[in-house]
Amino acid sequence: MADELLGACGRAREASCALARLTRAEKDATLRAMADALERDAAAILAANAEDVAAARGAGMKEALVDRLLLTEDRIRSMAAALRETAGLPDPVGTVVAEKRLRSGLRLVTRRVPFGVVAVVYESRPNVTSDIAGLCLKSGNAVLLKGGSDAARSNGAIVASLASAAGVTDAVQLLPAERTLLRRLLRMECEVDLVIPRGGAGLLRFVREHALVPVIETGTGNCHVYVDRAADQEMALRILVNAKTQRPGVCNAAEKLLVHREVARGFLPKAQAALEGVELRGCAETVGIIGCAPAIAEDWDTEYLDLVLGVKVVRDVEEAVAHINRHGTRHSEAIVTADAAAARTFLAEVDAAAVYHNASTRFTDGGEFGLGMEIGISTQKLHVRGPMGLAALTTTKHELRGDGQIRE
Amino acid sequence: MADELLGACGRAREASCALARLTRAEKDATLRAMADALERDAAAILAANAEDVAAARGAGMKEALVDRLLLTEDRIRSMAAALRETAGLPDPVGTVVAEKRLRSGLRLVTRRVPFGVVAVVYESRPNVTSDIAGLCLKSGNAVLLKGGSDAARSNGAIVASLASAAGVTDAVQLLPAERTLLRRLLRMECEVDLVIPRGGAGLLRFVREHALVPVIETGTGNCHVYVDRAADQEMALRILVNAKTQRPGVCNAAEKLLVHREVARGFLPKAQAALEGVELRGCAETVGIIGCAPAIAEDWDTEYLDLVLGVKVVRDVEEAVAHINRHGTRHSEAIVTADAAAARTFLAEVDAAAVYHNASTRFTDGGEFGLGMEIGISTQKLHVRGPMGLAALTTTKHELRGDGQIRE
Repeated sequence: MADELLGACGRAREASCALARLTRAEKDATLRAMADALERDAAAILAANAEDVAAARGAGMKEALVDRLLLTEDRIRSMAAALRETAGLPDPVGTVVAEKRLRSGLRLVTRRVPFGVVAVVYESRPNVTSDIAGLCLKSGNAVLLKGGSDAARSNGAIVASLASAAGVTDAVQLLPAERTLLRRLLRMECEVDLVIPRGGAGLLRFVREHALVPVIETGTGNCHVYVDRAADQEMALRILVNAKTQRPGVCNAAEKLLVHREVARGFLPKAQAALEGVELRGCAETVGIIGCAPAIAEDWDTEYLDLVLGVKVVRDVEEAVAHINRHGTRHSEAIVTADAAAARTFLAEVDAAAVYHNASTRFTDGGEFGLGMEIGISTQKLHVRGPMGLAALTTTKHELRGDGQIRE
Repeated sequence: MADELLGACGRAREASCALARLTRAEKDATLRAMADALERDAAAILAANAEDVAAARGAGMKEALVDRLLLTEDRIRSMAAALRETAGLPDPVGTVVAEKRLRSGLRLVTRRVPFGVVAVVYESRPNVTSDIAGLCLKSGNAVLLKGGSDAARSNGAIVASLASAAGVTDAVQLLPAERTLLRRLLRMECEVDLVIPRGGAGLLRFVREHALVPVIETGTGNCHVYVDRAADQEMALRILVNAKTQRPGVCNAAEKLLVHREVARGFLPKAQAALEGVELRGCAETVGIIGCAPAIAEDWDTEYLDLVLGVKVVRDVEEAVAHINRHGTRHSEAIVTADAAAARTFLAEVDAAAVYHNASTRFTDGGEFGLGMEIGISTQKLHVRGPMGLAALTTTKHELRGDGQIRE
């Protein structure tokens, strides 16, 4: 396997050099051919997926997770549509970021260029496979896909289909879903330019621990909604219910509610009623007011990805900010208030990729941010923060042209 | 020490929150106070430096390295001048990077914000200490400085002097120069937002191996000058001599010469004459022409930082590009040619932060690039490539303002 992995990396490097030279029209044609291939091969992909689903059910996987694994004709059509949408997005490669004449007389042009070889490590959902392939290819990168073992057959069928489009075989490669292989991959800093883990805290920790390759961490969201003393409570309820329940399994869903002490007694019973079906775990003060289950210390650091919500009463906006900066994952954080000063404090002092005033945390998303598609939501500070579109998959190169300049 | 380190990180975090709130005028006043302090405390700093220098000479340090360690009144004046220059640079914090209304009606403003707590790990030169402190402070970051043990007394005196300026004590902290402490620091990803190693390949490897904290690697330069068949040979000689000898100990100095086979016989003897005092190590073909010492395999991967140059004859520009992409450190690479097509190929295909046509590699520098000062030269693709000015010490934050928006 060691040599196979090196071989895959070598082919990816070759493919990345070829990709970097393609025009936008050539890349878009390839993306459309990949979309056509998925639709043509839908039956084979569904058959492979049915085997994954049967194996997962056989192993006792929960139905909520089975649903993430499941492909349907509709979902395959959406995958193809996403590839065509990516073809329609502007190409970041070659874009001039800066252009100036230096004091030496040199002309400096700084352009966006592809990273080269990108590895993406993800779990479950096989429909993500074609999204990632499309975004990497459009941004001129070869991609090594390392999906979850549950979805291995589905991913195999999807990548085989995508690779039937001309020139894609080495540009989009699926690696076996093994942790030992992942560990080796993460140490191949000469062969791989970037690794993007998409998944839970465990995967991120594993990648951070083992990576010599540069990493962009994505998608852990222990997100908070803070209901201030001066909140419009109807608005707060609407935002809270949306942020918690509209899609509880995603990273921009709310996991915690913080409530200003002065309005807790009035607001919490309304919140409890509005969040019917959501398990509430409260601080002592919350339990005193609405009699829910008590939270334990680790609740404050937990991303449930489920219909569970931690609830805490805070003294003021400063305590809310301090709690978020201590326990949050720097993803998306919201304040609901009519008090401009409190909003200013919250937006300035909370350390997160996205900070919201009077809106749901659920808007942290490439589509909502106007980026088209996204390859993930960065929760780190290096390179890119929040939703990552095509430009996030590029780096820059400084080109300098002179006529014999030397440094004095 | 474990608790001391945690304490230092905690104080740095507090200081970073305060720094993030300062206006540009407040930060600039602090920088000027730091500059005044250095000049006021010059005698104490020189006394501490004299002890470092005596200890280094006693331990048999080479004079070239002693010179890097040595401070003089002039050098202290330069340090103060650099702080005042940093005060004069525009403040990146708060700069709006993007501003738009989203389809949901939310207003999105993306701004530059400080990283928070930055650790900089560097070797020898104590004059760098105040440069780093100034750049971090101006960009709103608290900094943990981890200098070389050779310069421990000098760095201690410099930081004590800087810290006498109001509000700097916790914002600029010097950590003991111990590897075990560095190892712990590199794993404190909750306490430290970014680590920047400045130094040789060994330090970079150590940091990459042990870091959980995000890293920006800087300053290893195995840089090449490629003399093409169509080069103006007089220009090529001037560029080569400048790139190799003007300051051989810095990362943007040339370490290798590649020469097109068709001009090797004519050019190499002239290069040998022009590079008098430089030890040449050649490939077999080079040795056949000019009779220099033969290079061994590891020469091609070595950054000498000395008056040594590896010399290799190549078939064409493609072989030059392939050699550079295999052995280079992605820092600065130059082609000398009058052939526009060869230049285009070289600039497009070489994978490096800075690619030069008809100019010396020595221009890869924050000052030359018009950034004012630089904190290092990034040789990685993530976040920033090439010279890192103040903006490279910031990340971004997305602020979203609504009036109750929820996601449908």
